[in-house]
Amino acid sequence: MGMTISEKILAAHAGVDRVVPGEIINAKLDIVLANDVTGPVAIREFRKLGIDQVFDRDKVVLVPDHFTPNKDIASAEQCKIMRDFVREQEITHYWESGRVGIEHCLLPEQGVVLPGDLIIGADSHTCTYGALGAFSTGVGSTDLAAGMATGEAWFKIPETIRFVFHGNQYQPWISGKDLILYIIGQIGVDGALYSAMEFAGEGIKALSMDNRLTISNMAIEAGAKAGLIEPDEITLAYVSSRAKRPYKIYNSDSDAKYAQVFDYQTKDIPLQVACPHLPENTKSVDEVSGIKMDQVVIGSCTNGRLEDLEIAARILKGNSVHPEIRCLVFPGTQEIMLEAMRRGYIETLIEAGAAVSTPTCGPCLGGHMGILAKGEKALSTTNRNFVGRMGHPGSEVYLCNPAVAAASAIKGEIVHPREVVKNG
Amino acid sequence: MGMTISEKILAAHAGVDRVVPGEIINAKLDIVLANDVTGPVAIREFRKLGIDQVFDRDKVVLVPDHFTPNKDIASAEQCKIMRDFVREQEITHYWESGRVGIEHCLLPEQGVVLPGDLIIGADSHTCTYGALGAFSTGVGSTDLAAGMATGEAWFKIPETIRFVFHGNQYQPWISGKDLILYIIGQIGVDGALYSAMEFAGEGIKALSMDNRLTISNMAIEAGAKAGLIEPDEITLAYVSSRAKRPYKIYNSDSDAKYAQVFDYQTKDIPLQVACPHLPENTKSVDEVSGIKMDQVVIGSCTNGRLEDLEIAARILKGNSVHPEIRCLVFPGTQEIMLEAMRRGYIETLIEAGAAVSTPTCGPCLGGHMGILAKGEKALSTTNRNFVGRMGHPGSEVYLCNPAVAAASAIKGEIVHPREVVKNG
Repeated sequence: MGMTISEKILAAHAGVDRVVPGEIINAKLDIVLANDVTGPVAIREFRKLGIDQVFDRDKVVLVPDHFTPNKDIASAEQCKIMRDFVREQEITHYWESGRVGIEHCLLPEQGVVLPGDLIIGADSHTCTYGALGAFSTGVGSTDLAAGMATGEAWFKIPETIRFVFHGNQYQPWISGKDLILYIIGQIGVDGALYSAMEFAGEGIKALSMDNRLTISNMAIEAGAKAGLIEPDEITLAYVSSRAKRPYKIYNSDSDAKYAQVFDYQTKDIPLQVACPHLPENTKSVDEVSGIKMDQVVIGSCTNGRLEDLEIAARILKGNSVHPEIRCLVFPGTQEIMLEAMRRGYIETLIEAGAAVSTPTCGPCLGGHMGILAKGEKALSTTNRNFVGRMGHPGSEVYLCNPAVAAASAIKGEIVHPREVVKNG
Repeated sequence: MGMTISEKILAAHAGVDRVVPGEIINAKLDIVLANDVTGPVAIREFRKLGIDQVFDRDKVVLVPDHFTPNKDIASAEQCKIMRDFVREQEITHYWESGRVGIEHCLLPEQGVVLPGDLIIGADSHTCTYGALGAFSTGVGSTDLAAGMATGEAWFKIPETIRFVFHGNQYQPWISGKDLILYIIGQIGVDGALYSAMEFAGEGIKALSMDNRLTISNMAIEAGAKAGLIEPDEITLAYVSSRAKRPYKIYNSDSDAKYAQVFDYQTKDIPLQVACPHLPENTKSVDEVSGIKMDQVVIGSCTNGRLEDLEIAARILKGNSVHPEIRCLVFPGTQEIMLEAMRRGYIETLIEAGAAVSTPTCGPCLGGHMGILAKGEKALSTTNRNFVGRMGHPGSEVYLCNPAVAAASAIKGEIVHPREVVKNG
């Protein structure tokens, strides 16, 4: 019996030839990640362990991206705890405001996370790096502290669920976001609980890295431990210029055992909107068109990459954001911001009436830079639409891809991009 | 006996030929301004008056610039109160995130405030518009509510203090910011209490509008009611393409009576830094060079205009922000942001490692987007360095011009721009 990519990565990092679902292992970690929300808690727990040094200053990664540039005194103090720790421990991978990006956009871009890695992060969307063929999962701050100290963590080997996309003919404006929302709509927010999701098939191979990262990013929204895509030439093209250390490619064996296999036809998947208050409440865009919005958010670790901004700019070019909409754009990193600027996307977005922020997690988790008042509605390319996620408990968040978001920003209500783009 | 420009504007708006300092008048208002901090309070007071309509929907101006994009639920609710009022009253001059700018950059740029105007604003830096030859002053939210209802306000005619800058030879990197800091350093933060300041002389006539707006902006920091500059060809060039209504030029009579006249030689004024915790604690840059900073802020209603960004970009071009500095840039308006982008300044700033925000008052008043932790120091082009102004009461703010800020961002400590720019 063969193994899945997830099982192979976990086995290799546990120093064993073979693992089976349900088994508990102790494994060596390649990257241990925290941000300005979880990092200070992990650092406090780390101190309690009575250890002076992190296990490897190149492998402990700290990213102040959530409430930065500092939202308030409390967040400033949190960041200071992390910054002081970084200086004390001489942490390699740390970035200040002006150089920082949203962690899950920044780490792949900077080659900090690589195929075959075993990664834990004190952030639920750490699963993003599965798109590179890494096993990468979110943990609590206490587990993270132990990882910072020892470079190891225990894992229960998850079962793997395979999602196969047949064909590579997509409906217009479909993106990775629609595929993952579609899956979550099918299986529910606990449909992959503690499992490893594996995204495969011709439909996945046809996707860019930006789209793949969006898919893996939201594996956690189906309850999954991780969401992997086997590396291919697109992956290698992405990582080869970025990697500053060796990495290893793992693939699932053809006789690997899956807990379940879901088969989808790419051509059948319509543009998705996840309605309040769960990512599983998916509808086709046409089913929900006409719902008026107050705010449109384009960006985040889910959809703040270059292609996302390109699509938004293409749709907003020569158009204007509706007068009653606040359209907020959050590029994932400074490199993305710069490239989008050089290509004219940022100019187009601002000309259309969008506010373009320096990279930050911002409103996605109700942090800052676009919080909703009672009764307000936002259409957002972010990853969660839980009650109060973007502000007041009486506000609502709808999730979609950047094309739907941009088109809806123009109309002031949810619309299919075909409503604003000729031949769209 | 002649009148000063301030006296003439107040007399004209009171419908009388002549006013004298100390006299109380009732005057008609051209513009009544509030922002997202003061507007909701003013609206509540307005409601109490039992009046249905503001006196003129073209003359009541509401600008959500302070805690936007909404910092938190409380600020979201504040903005909603203002937005609902704007829709109900069909207010002409209102802008959402993505179109809004910092009020005191936005209103001159958009031609909303004009020479000869009498303006009240529920924001202390409303005095900025004095640079256009308007009498413009900050009031409380209750006075503002009365102004919104009646279009009138009472004023005690202030005495005028004249500041004459002789010569037009400035030391390198000197800007309007240095002139106003120099004045405040000379006369103190109550040196012009309840007076109208009048900035005049060859040294003022040599300045661009951007520099003049910076000077008038900080009149309040000397305790002044207003800070005026007589319109000249530079003023007219600025307003002629922006004005959408008639305006009137007033000048001080040659025999106008001044409470005091200060004479300065432009060539004698060195680059200024105002040390904590008052704008009057001015030193020359060379006296304070070497003080290490944690954050550098470039922007705000004081120094967020195109020339400010141009100077910052010129200095940061090809350089890097010091690794231990967060360098935050806040353009004053979206038009400034766009023009700075087209000219390559924004790209230069980001390449150097600065975070460029969508326009907002941000950290200037400790709002958001760059708040200081205990013990941290910021060098800032903003207007106030009071205790806790930018965050924790145990933090410190130093004020300077954009050239000093940019140079210091590179070095990580206060330096004269000559330290980083050849021939500077």
